[in-house]
Amino acid sequence: MTSDRTWTAALVVIGDEILSGRTHDKNIAQVASWLQVQGIRLAEVRVVPDVEQRIAEAVNALRVAHDYLFTTGGIGPTHDDITVDAVATALGVPVVVHPEARKILEDYYRDRPGGLTEPRLRMARTPEGAELLRNPSSGAPGVRMGNVYILAGVPHIAASMLEALTGRLEGGRPVVSVTIGARAPESDVAEMLRETEAANPGVAIGSYPFFKDGRYGANFVIRSADGDLARSTGADLSRQLREAGYEPVDGGI
Amino acid sequence: MTSDRTWTAALVVIGDEILSGRTHDKNIAQVASWLQVQGIRLAEVRVVPDVEQRIAEAVNALRVAHDYLFTTGGIGPTHDDITVDAVATALGVPVVVHPEARKILEDYYRDRPGGLTEPRLRMARTPEGAELLRNPSSGAPGVRMGNVYILAGVPHIAASMLEALTGRLEGGRPVVSVTIGARAPESDVAEMLRETEAANPGVAIGSYPFFKDGRYGANFVIRSADGDLARSTGADLSRQLREAGYEPVDGGI
Repeated sequence: MTSDRTWTAALVVIGDEILSGRTHDKNIAQVASWLQVQGIRLAEVRVVPDVEQRIAEAVNALRVAHDYLFTTGGIGPTHDDITVDAVATALGVPVVVHPEARKILEDYYRDRPGGLTEPRLRMARTPEGAELLRNPSSGAPGVRMGNVYILAGVPHIAASMLEALTGRLEGGRPVVSVTIGARAPESDVAEMLRETEAANPGVAIGSYPFFKDGRYGANFVIRSADGDLARSTGADLSRQLREAGYEPVDGGI
Repeated sequence: MTSDRTWTAALVVIGDEILSGRTHDKNIAQVASWLQVQGIRLAEVRVVPDVEQRIAEAVNALRVAHDYLFTTGGIGPTHDDITVDAVATALGVPVVVHPEARKILEDYYRDRPGGLTEPRLRMARTPEGAELLRNPSSGAPGVRMGNVYILAGVPHIAASMLEALTGRLEGGRPVVSVTIGARAPESDVAEMLRETEAANPGVAIGSYPFFKDGRYGANFVIRSADGDLARSTGADLSRQLREAGYEPVDGGI
């Protein structure tokens, strides 16, 4: 399912471990990349602490502003896992034990030491009225509640939940990006970039400098929902760089 | 300068490259870690696109809610570098060429090919009334405007700007964190964690599961502005884990 309008999503990353610097977030990049393939643009991210009211505020601010809202983190079995409670608060519904989730966990823990303990049963709690998101990599499911998608925080589990959702969300045309790298200080080609963007309505050109092997350079990324336009603009920019004496590297450096 | 109240900061990460998934953000973790050492808690992060109004909205929402606001990204020489304009818009002041910044760039580019071109001079623009932040690693300075600190997006340049600011911001007591790792499924010790946190007011305990070498485990992080309390709670938790038959690993796994 695709359409010509722009579909947008927001992401709320939940966890004191990200805000303390202890854990390097990997979910922003992985959710962003996955959304691009679905034809949905990630428009905003907020990282909030393990505080119910703060999570609920972010959820309510973003779920009405975007087609989809994803959350990562805070759905495990311990006392600091309060995402389900916060989303229920945000939506004004109670938290219930979801019968299907309970069944999944009963099956998952049947032959595992300890069985389905009270803390593990926490992972069957959802806002009332929710559907489950399949988790192929460990027992506890994710949760969908309206346009809010509650994913795990552990990156490989979040990835498997996204994988199970692939192709199932309505979106627009995937954004195509073409990258041209060059050993050009970006300030030397700033005017060329500005003019190329202006001459090609419908593309956005980003400039990302790097310092590598002792020399400066930049990658120029041309993005458009019109793939042909992105590619022709990339070819145009390559030609201009070459004519100006910079060796372009298609695909970036 | 320290005091007993909690000092907080927010961070606005600016850039389409983060929201597209092309670039993995490194600034959240590095700003977070640096702030902890300054006795300032990172309370919220927002990632926003290269759109002036969206940057300005985030800046205005966060600068009044926290003691400090940091931004990363969007201060280079190209057309997509609009952070200074957005902060000026947010604060209702014009953008000017800062004489001292102009001088820094004149010196920096004097012996470099091309000299101080018009695009490079963009990097001397600041909101009117701003002070400069020293950039020991490349020419263009960061900008301070009230409680708003505008840093570069390239992580090693942002790091050098933070380094130059070390010890110069008023904060509270640095948060001390003690990490205990164990080959314990977190759901098995959820009650132990909850009770230990409840018995030690002033600490927050986080539980971060991992899967490593084919086995599950978790790191438990005890955080407090009271270092003695963090350490004694860590020792208490270690003892409980050992008595329950889990081998604790001080410092985490």
